[in-house]
Amino acid sequence: MTEPSPTAAVLLIGDELLSGRTRDVNLQQIATYLGPLGIQVHEARTVPDVQARIVEAVNALRAAYTYVFTTGGIGPTHDDITADAIAAAFGVGIGEHPDVIAMLSERYAEMKTEFSPARRRMARIPHGATLVANPVSGAPGFQMENVFTLAGVPQVARAMLEDIGPRLRTGAVVHKVTIRGIGLREGDIAEPLGALAQEMPDVAFGSYPWFRSVGDNGVHLVASTIHPDLIESVTRRLEDIISATGVKPERIVEGAA
Amino acid sequence: MTEPSPTAAVLLIGDELLSGRTRDVNLQQIATYLGPLGIQVHEARTVPDVQARIVEAVNALRAAYTYVFTTGGIGPTHDDITADAIAAAFGVGIGEHPDVIAMLSERYAEMKTEFSPARRRMARIPHGATLVANPVSGAPGFQMENVFTLAGVPQVARAMLEDIGPRLRTGAVVHKVTIRGIGLREGDIAEPLGALAQEMPDVAFGSYPWFRSVGDNGVHLVASTIHPDLIESVTRRLEDIISATGVKPERIVEGAA
Repeated sequence: MTEPSPTAAVLLIGDELLSGRTRDVNLQQIATYLGPLGIQVHEARTVPDVQARIVEAVNALRAAYTYVFTTGGIGPTHDDITADAIAAAFGVGIGEHPDVIAMLSERYAEMKTEFSPARRRMARIPHGATLVANPVSGAPGFQMENVFTLAGVPQVARAMLEDIGPRLRTGAVVHKVTIRGIGLREGDIAEPLGALAQEMPDVAFGSYPWFRSVGDNGVHLVASTIHPDLIESVTRRLEDIISATGVKPERIVEGAA
Repeated sequence: MTEPSPTAAVLLIGDELLSGRTRDVNLQQIATYLGPLGIQVHEARTVPDVQARIVEAVNALRAAYTYVFTTGGIGPTHDDITADAIAAAFGVGIGEHPDVIAMLSERYAEMKTEFSPARRRMARIPHGATLVANPVSGAPGFQMENVFTLAGVPQVARAMLEDIGPRLRTGAVVHKVTIRGIGLREGDIAEPLGALAQEMPDVAFGSYPWFRSVGDNGVHLVASTIHPDLIESVTRRLEDIISATGVKPERIVEGAA
């Protein structure tokens, strides 16, 4: 018997995501990083910069999923409270990590920048956590058991994922195919698509309409499966379903959908 | 004594958001629609197209917040299960709503399109719900007590908000100012910003660094308050904090940040 594939949750931390000031991109980049490792994101939550709310979400998610990835709130300002919240969630202390102090001291000396008390806040790491490298801007993320704490700045979060990847248990990779029908309407394919989903229980089928304006509308059909040998047959079946409506099916290259 | 301002949560439903296929825009558009009504979004969750997960999230959120807005999963395909999940969450039945059947019958007749069994699925509304108009593509959303169920297609979700707005209790509007410092680093302003946050407890301060590349980096400082008379003084204080570092502060016009 093989072990089930690992699961993941993403916890996005920050008032700016809930006020609408910032549109999150980290969920998508974490999901697309984990997908090829065979780790599926099963849930995401967005919470404000409020310690009790972060603690509650971290504890709910780390109990339910193999891995949790948090983003945001690890900078030097007063609203950066994620490290303290993670320590509170795990019931451990927090303090300046000597390796981070050494690394940031050197970095700021090179930059001829004062290593101020605010910047030293970025060296505060929950006791027992291991570091996650930040090659972009220096101040590290950290791993506390199954919880990985990343920066909110997308370029930094992306770089941190590279350091985390080798630590993760991988699972069965999900293979996908996307077929687009321009001008197609979901109601035109819903019945044969539902029948196909019944017929092929090892494949997950999704139907995603878009509507930008009259004429710029249509449907993407997506099939996902851990059985790569099913991809070619399922592709032909989806193309047939679209063709039967009089619309030309177009296969979308992975990553360009 | 005035009643506290209403709160909101957003529940984003769909496998495509968790796989990374689709980057959500609905949280941002719901938050920016509600902001001027004095309704703050306090939490968002993203769950897959799995009934038990939708039910659990709906019930957690509707108990905790004044309003809940769901997006996604109300189309005609087999993976559109939101209406059933909402009915299950409220413990009510679900069936074809006669007003929706009449409206869609007429619409599809005009379009010379078959009103197929799949399309009739879009007329299934939980018992006791009221409808939310969809001027874009016809099939309505609905309101069940404090839960509003919207389409996932952003243009449709946006149109549905217009129909919901007049039903909402409004609160104290949050006024904001955003000041940008190009090249500014958070560590340079963290201490005076933290002190200002202590001094002005009626204002929430956020610090949002961006880093696209060397040279295209900086910090946005945001102050938010329900007291409009504080905006001018807090603006000057933030400008002074940025100026003291040698960086030129730039006030960002609301909505363009």
